Amino acid sequence: MKARIKVTLKDGVLDPQGKAIANALGGLGFEGIEDVRQGKYIEVELAESDPDKARSQVTKMCEELLANMVIENFSFVLETA
Amino acid sequence: MKARIKVTLKDGVLDPQGKAIANALGGLGFEGIEDVRQGKYIEVELAESDPDKARSQVTKMCEELLANMVIENFSFVLETA
Repeated sequence: MKARIKVTLKDGVLDPQGKAIANALGGLGFEGIEDVRQGKYIEVELAESDPDKARSQVTKMCEELLANMVIENFSFVLETA
Repeated sequence: MKARIKVTLKDGVLDPQGKAIANALGGLGFEGIEDVRQGKYIEVELAESDPDKARSQVTKMCEELLANMVIENFSFVLETA
């Protein structure tokens, strides 16, 4: 089973990397860029085949390692192989 | 209109950051982690409201700046605000 995890900064948390991307896009001539936020995308391949167990395992992984819960949110979808 | 972009390493490209995450998860006691791949997740808020124009604009952004087409793939979905 594969988990596709997105980790994003919470609203209100400054995102200098996103701002840098927005500036770079402007410099390349792209117009109408209103905001850019950068996050992380992580794919985890799990041996677990039970969706409920996989879901609780991935939630724990995000809370303990993948996301900094003070400033980041996470969401994920599970996919059967 | 918002574009949610995922940039991932192509198959076969080494991903030391993913390996480090897999090792760290193992060290935290998580079992059955078969593989981890890390990518980037980028949200771009566009002034453009025409889906076709937005799609071609975002594709160009990915090819020119957001993804390194030699080693990375990208995919995105568009969302109306």
